[in-house]
Amino acid sequence: MSVLVVGSVALDTVQTPFGRVVEALGGSATYFSLAASLYTEVNLVAVVGSDFPSSHTALLKEAGVDLSGLQVCEGKTFRWAGQYDFDLNTAHTLDTQLNVFATFHPELPDAYKRSPFVFLANIDPDLQYEVLQQVTGARVKVMDTMNFWIEGKRDALTRTISAVDIVLMNEAEVRQYANTYSLVAGARKILALGPQALVVKKGEYGCVMFADTQYFVAPAYPLEQVKDPTGAGDSFAGGFIGHLARAGELTPSAIKQAIVHGSVIASFAVEEFSVSRLRSILPEDIARRYREFQEFTCFDDRK
Amino acid sequence: MSVLVVGSVALDTVQTPFGRVVEALGGSATYFSLAASLYTEVNLVAVVGSDFPSSHTALLKEAGVDLSGLQVCEGKTFRWAGQYDFDLNTAHTLDTQLNVFATFHPELPDAYKRSPFVFLANIDPDLQYEVLQQVTGARVKVMDTMNFWIEGKRDALTRTISAVDIVLMNEAEVRQYANTYSLVAGARKILALGPQALVVKKGEYGCVMFADTQYFVAPAYPLEQVKDPTGAGDSFAGGFIGHLARAGELTPSAIKQAIVHGSVIASFAVEEFSVSRLRSILPEDIARRYREFQEFTCFDDRK
Repeated sequence: MSVLVVGSVALDTVQTPFGRVVEALGGSATYFSLAASLYTEVNLVAVVGSDFPSSHTALLKEAGVDLSGLQVCEGKTFRWAGQYDFDLNTAHTLDTQLNVFATFHPELPDAYKRSPFVFLANIDPDLQYEVLQQVTGARVKVMDTMNFWIEGKRDALTRTISAVDIVLMNEAEVRQYANTYSLVAGARKILALGPQALVVKKGEYGCVMFADTQYFVAPAYPLEQVKDPTGAGDSFAGGFIGHLARAGELTPSAIKQAIVHGSVIASFAVEEFSVSRLRSILPEDIARRYREFQEFTCFDDRK
Repeated sequence: MSVLVVGSVALDTVQTPFGRVVEALGGSATYFSLAASLYTEVNLVAVVGSDFPSSHTALLKEAGVDLSGLQVCEGKTFRWAGQYDFDLNTAHTLDTQLNVFATFHPELPDAYKRSPFVFLANIDPDLQYEVLQQVTGARVKVMDTMNFWIEGKRDALTRTISAVDIVLMNEAEVRQYANTYSLVAGARKILALGPQALVVKKGEYGCVMFADTQYFVAPAYPLEQVKDPTGAGDSFAGGFIGHLARAGELTPSAIKQAIVHGSVIASFAVEEFSVSRLRSILPEDIARRYREFQEFTCFDDRK
């Protein structure tokens, strides 16, 4: 089954203790698409400026991403510049130039409106809601968000949360949105708004999923070196939803396995700068790391 | 098989956002003993002052802990006062009075010297080494430590690490001792000194085990409220070594299961102040929480 993603396509300038890239391909929709396209067909909705390199467009196409929803507007592409210190869990934004992204309104090609799986990457919750109005037939709607919207657009964000099936947030965002230190209590507040599940991303500590009658924890893959954590969350989302879409079901077991697939893909994504590593992942790479996750999390064959 | 523990027995004054206790029963050897006694026979070596309440001695005896190695010296018992804010991962020490603990030298009753499992709780690494000289027949030697010894007694600590089978440390201690941010690289440095395995405790994020050819992760149990994290690490050690001693083997599978048992016992310990909850754990409580860990960490029945 196909997946629709609405988010950003950007040019990222990123510095980490391990190197630097200038105006490299980035953006939430980019990372998500390249990750999810390892599993299924991906339909992308985003906007770029007239300066967007055709080599980047070609790269996405080669990965099989459908770009009929990619708007190309007069002006400059969204640019982000950030830096990570040795604590690679935290990005320090140096510069944000929204450019054509400032006036972005998602326009869905008709064919996209029937995508059974929808991922609303981290954009204005009002825009996320606009998309939801257009994909009323979607089976599974998943959203991400960030502290900026929690602070500035809380009501709009709550409306979007109430209208999706699965929410992805990082740990600090759950605490901030729910106004509680306890992640368990925060998760319950968010689930009470309607979503079936909340997946809390914890960076190097992996992630946990809260659902009504289910709880699941996946560690992060133990990498000796992380070069560039940019896009880890969106790559996770791509592996997660990509696997669900390929499985075509939402059983508890499929959801757990999808979380591990998300963790596997995120672990590859951070091994290189920009999208370099995402482009070279082979099915056998995924299978091998998935088996390793089994080895280091399962402890008893008896049920 | 029996377990020998050498560590502290203390009177703790603890304040958390959820309450306060004054001169309650505490100390690393206390938490460890009560935890491990849920699994097997425990031989305790520690020192208390002449002011140590007989009710505390009685409590340990009732739990089946052998106290023939508990020295009672003229003077006052070791006292510790600490405080936790909402970030319950970090204890802030308000006061430490070593008292009789300042001149403590472990003296092992002859019968203890044959304990096949030995836990060296967080005491001076020179004292830990003294104990190791007396238990040359021990099958499994496990140690804990803390930042204080990493800073002040690095060489002695290295000597002890080189002489044990399993090292328990928290995350910050691994980074500090190995002088690297990467936990994977830090673990490799520590394992290169000789130990078979390193178990890294991460508080609310659970723990990870590094061994030569093995890696294993256990999350923490998702508690809605933690009342008092004091003793969590020693309770973990008690469940961990207690299970190993009961199983009587050190297979990869037994070690993984032992880590989950440690996590289960630690999750109970922090539910109440001091040792209250440890005293009331039933075998069926352990079995139930162990099954829950399986539910929320295993994701695929296929091997």
